[in-house]
Amino acid sequence: MVELHQPKSSTKSFLVCVLAVVILGIAPTADARIRHYKFDVKYEYRSPDCYQKLVITVNGLSPGPTIVAQQGDTVIVDVTNDLGTENLAIHWHGIRQRGTPWSDGTEGVTQCPILPGETFTYKFVVDRAGTYLYHAHYGMQREAGLYGMIRVALPDGVSEPFPYDYDRSIILNDWYHKSTYEQAAGLSSIPFGWVGEPQSLLIHGRGRFDCSSLGTGSGVCNSTNPECSPYVMTIVPGKTYRLRGHNLTVVEADGHYVEPFTVKNLFIYSGETYSVLVKANQDPSRNYWITSNVVSRKPATPTGLGVFNYYPNHPRRRPPTVPTSGPVWNDTAPRLAQSLGIKAEQGYIHSPPLTSDRVMVFLNTQNKINGYFHWSINNVSYTLPQTPYLIALKKGLHNAFNQTPPPDGYGFLNYDIFKVQNNTNATSSNSIYRLKFNTTIDIILQNANTMTPNNSETHPWHLHGHDFWVLGYGEGKFDIKNDPKKYNLINPIMKNTVPVHPYSWTALRFQSDNPGVWAFHCHIESHFYMGMGVVFEEGIEKVGKLPSSIMGCGATKGYH
Amino acid sequence: MVELHQPKSSTKSFLVCVLAVVILGIAPTADARIRHYKFDVKYEYRSPDCYQKLVITVNGLSPGPTIVAQQGDTVIVDVTNDLGTENLAIHWHGIRQRGTPWSDGTEGVTQCPILPGETFTYKFVVDRAGTYLYHAHYGMQREAGLYGMIRVALPDGVSEPFPYDYDRSIILNDWYHKSTYEQAAGLSSIPFGWVGEPQSLLIHGRGRFDCSSLGTGSGVCNSTNPECSPYVMTIVPGKTYRLRGHNLTVVEADGHYVEPFTVKNLFIYSGETYSVLVKANQDPSRNYWITSNVVSRKPATPTGLGVFNYYPNHPRRRPPTVPTSGPVWNDTAPRLAQSLGIKAEQGYIHSPPLTSDRVMVFLNTQNKINGYFHWSINNVSYTLPQTPYLIALKKGLHNAFNQTPPPDGYGFLNYDIFKVQNNTNATSSNSIYRLKFNTTIDIILQNANTMTPNNSETHPWHLHGHDFWVLGYGEGKFDIKNDPKKYNLINPIMKNTVPVHPYSWTALRFQSDNPGVWAFHCHIESHFYMGMGVVFEEGIEKVGKLPSSIMGCGATKGYH
Repeated sequence: MVELHQPKSSTKSFLVCVLAVVILGIAPTADARIRHYKFDVKYEYRSPDCYQKLVITVNGLSPGPTIVAQQGDTVIVDVTNDLGTENLAIHWHGIRQRGTPWSDGTEGVTQCPILPGETFTYKFVVDRAGTYLYHAHYGMQREAGLYGMIRVALPDGVSEPFPYDYDRSIILNDWYHKSTYEQAAGLSSIPFGWVGEPQSLLIHGRGRFDCSSLGTGSGVCNSTNPECSPYVMTIVPGKTYRLRGHNLTVVEADGHYVEPFTVKNLFIYSGETYSVLVKANQDPSRNYWITSNVVSRKPATPTGLGVFNYYPNHPRRRPPTVPTSGPVWNDTAPRLAQSLGIKAEQGYIHSPPLTSDRVMVFLNTQNKINGYFHWSINNVSYTLPQTPYLIALKKGLHNAFNQTPPPDGYGFLNYDIFKVQNNTNATSSNSIYRLKFNTTIDIILQNANTMTPNNSETHPWHLHGHDFWVLGYGEGKFDIKNDPKKYNLINPIMKNTVPVHPYSWTALRFQSDNPGVWAFHCHIESHFYMGMGVVFEEGIEKVGKLPSSIMGCGATKGYH
Repeated sequence: MVELHQPKSSTKSFLVCVLAVVILGIAPTADARIRHYKFDVKYEYRSPDCYQKLVITVNGLSPGPTIVAQQGDTVIVDVTNDLGTENLAIHWHGIRQRGTPWSDGTEGVTQCPILPGETFTYKFVVDRAGTYLYHAHYGMQREAGLYGMIRVALPDGVSEPFPYDYDRSIILNDWYHKSTYEQAAGLSSIPFGWVGEPQSLLIHGRGRFDCSSLGTGSGVCNSTNPECSPYVMTIVPGKTYRLRGHNLTVVEADGHYVEPFTVKNLFIYSGETYSVLVKANQDPSRNYWITSNVVSRKPATPTGLGVFNYYPNHPRRRPPTVPTSGPVWNDTAPRLAQSLGIKAEQGYIHSPPLTSDRVMVFLNTQNKINGYFHWSINNVSYTLPQTPYLIALKKGLHNAFNQTPPPDGYGFLNYDIFKVQNNTNATSSNSIYRLKFNTTIDIILQNANTMTPNNSETHPWHLHGHDFWVLGYGEGKFDIKNDPKKYNLINPIMKNTVPVHPYSWTALRFQSDNPGVWAFHCHIESHFYMGMGVVFEEGIEKVGKLPSSIMGCGATKGYH
């Protein structure tokens, strides 16, 4: 069995992550410049896994076109909403939006949605080289297919701390056959209708559903449709050969250089991006499988397959081996070990402040509120106001949302994270955390049992507008006295997305130095939809003049 | 064979029409008052014809709750959009909105759409007794199930010119299993994807699809679901008995009294409302079928069935006869005859002006524009601007839409309405007709061949903000010299919706006396979506202060 890599879909729901398989020189470009893109967003019939359904495309594509830029460039994206009756917002995942908080693309937080027929212009500076994402950030729209990549090259004359020949990118995604409307209607129903396991794991927008498993008259599913032939990555064999499987050497995560480490499988969580080096050092007379599998939940979704094509073998030539089935789905240990193993690369360490000004502990739980299932943080399930926070706060509209802040912690003394808890005091709220500007904030994400006995899930948390230092991970309940002593303050990696493992905790530190209003949420689309997130405000008084294009909803209707 | 009535779905597409089977006294009420409704609009799973799909409901219902009021009352409807990511607008069909043009509910014409999470308040006076409708007026959203009835009773002390015992209402609708997103994506694709024939004809929200025609694994279809048991109208048998079928005596159309005429089948077109009297004078020991069938297109949809239940027979007792199959679908003559037979009731005639100030001839055609199929008026296919006309005109925003008016006629001298025409000069535009205030306008709707040889369809045209006099109908090409001489200027009926029959013309007259901006369009959802409509402006300077709630899109974004 020879395999390339096994990125893992970690949890119940949607996964967007980028694996940039970096193999020769990003062509250096001239001075900082404008990169102007036009995105036409519409519903079109597509068959990414052979099953035909309506997909949200960008310029006819899903995944959408890759945004390519150089560090320091200004990216302008004119987004035209051609969805008919549905609104839109696009988030530029991993871009910190310093000075342009209104371009973060988070509906309800930084802007009103883009209405059908409208063209909205996002404009921001890509201030750091690396691999990033974009995707819809409105309702559960991302799951309909609106996602793509952003690749930011280094400035001229600067080189990366690792050699490679060619640069290739793969984006991974879970794929559901039901529309996001159907999924969302189930999630907000009594009785609860769970979206279920994805039908396919897409590798760069391609999968292969078993059409024969459907009855007749059940929609169009055509296994011979070229749209769903496996993704093929063609590579030129090098001069060195080894007989064992391809190894993956991880060199970048979320735009930061990683102290290189080599694995055969890489666990990737929704919203994470990685660059890995792969030596094409295997038998060049054949092709190899690229595989992707679900972990953390018992997989009901078949392995995602692509082809690692050794030139000049025919790209459609089937690898002679059976694809691997992936690691044991419920073995948390290797996932925790990978998390702990990621450190900043020597020479590229951003040293964290040694102490923090405020510590918040965020209990991750499920609740039932008025009969509906929710995900909550400290027993508060997040809802969005009609008037986006950025506008409400800048304009002093105090009635636009609940002004009482949510709690900084939960009753951890008496809370058993290994048991189903009643959480009878759970509530929904659109209140937010207001951070003192230019202070250091610690967040401990505390995982716990869900409403199902002996069950705790994996949640990849994504912070908008910032990178954070990952100070530590641990099993069980966070010990506020002893665990901080084990924090890695020497070479912690910075990231924008990080998992909290089942029955475990993850500790982060960031600086409230980016004027704006920023979401921090579980990146699993259905969890976020069910309230698993919070919002931070910092330095609102330092935010510049808001563009009128972000208005039009809530208290910002009207002619001016 | 004994049958109650056979309302007919006239054309390709969606039908909303109300048949108010009027049988005893609308309870008289007190002085003019406020009728306050709260509509919560959301997607929910429903099985109106046994096939489960997402339906747009109002307070959990489709059809939505009936609005009941008395002439002179003010109706307030607080509409909350809980559709998640989709906007909304609701039109109050047949209500003239005198003094409240911003409450007409026509997205793009009189208001910006209602955003998800928002509550929009419609407020209007119901100034005339009669039977009306409400339905979504945004994209093709009406087809998703958002429709219902408005019943306006006479003032205290005023009685109707016909006796009856009980008042019952039935609303008819075509039903598609595909979502409106799927239908709309097909209509705006190359190649064109036709929505096809409806899967069911619903009678008051109920139909019965043959679940066994579906394969396995093709969605939920359960013939034993009580949701899709046939609609039952229970009636008390009277004292007079006749052995022949139930007759229908038509007494009201679109809120105007009709010179009574009696039929066995009534042709009803999308957007029309009728009141008919039915004598329960048949054999009371059994039940009778209520049937509805498609005409004007070759039916591919089974007969819609309801039960006319003679008390005390069990409502579920099957009528002993086979339901009728309806009249010959392509026989236009009886339909034209019914149209010609509808006159205003003596004593309730509104005399029309004997001459008009402006005559417009509207050629109804299909075109291809840039490869896409469209419906057009005088070869102009209608599109909506980003800023609603009502706001753009009132605020003098001249860049909001094309200021060049569309043509008042077409090249009728050389146009053969019986042949497929190239119409190579067809175009799309958001330009509008500006009418001189308080003048008399004649519209001749001229039907023609579609892009299919030997094919001309039926189009029910609906005018917002007005009733019009129906001056005449005729076959073939309208003769501007001789046909006006045959106009009925004595007792023409006033309506808000009227059909133009295949290869025929229909002549209307109305007064431009209602300050505002008003749509006039084919009421078939897919035709309107494909551009079959125009917009009239009249007396814009007399329109009062616009509420800010209608703003928020196009040029009306921004904080004020």
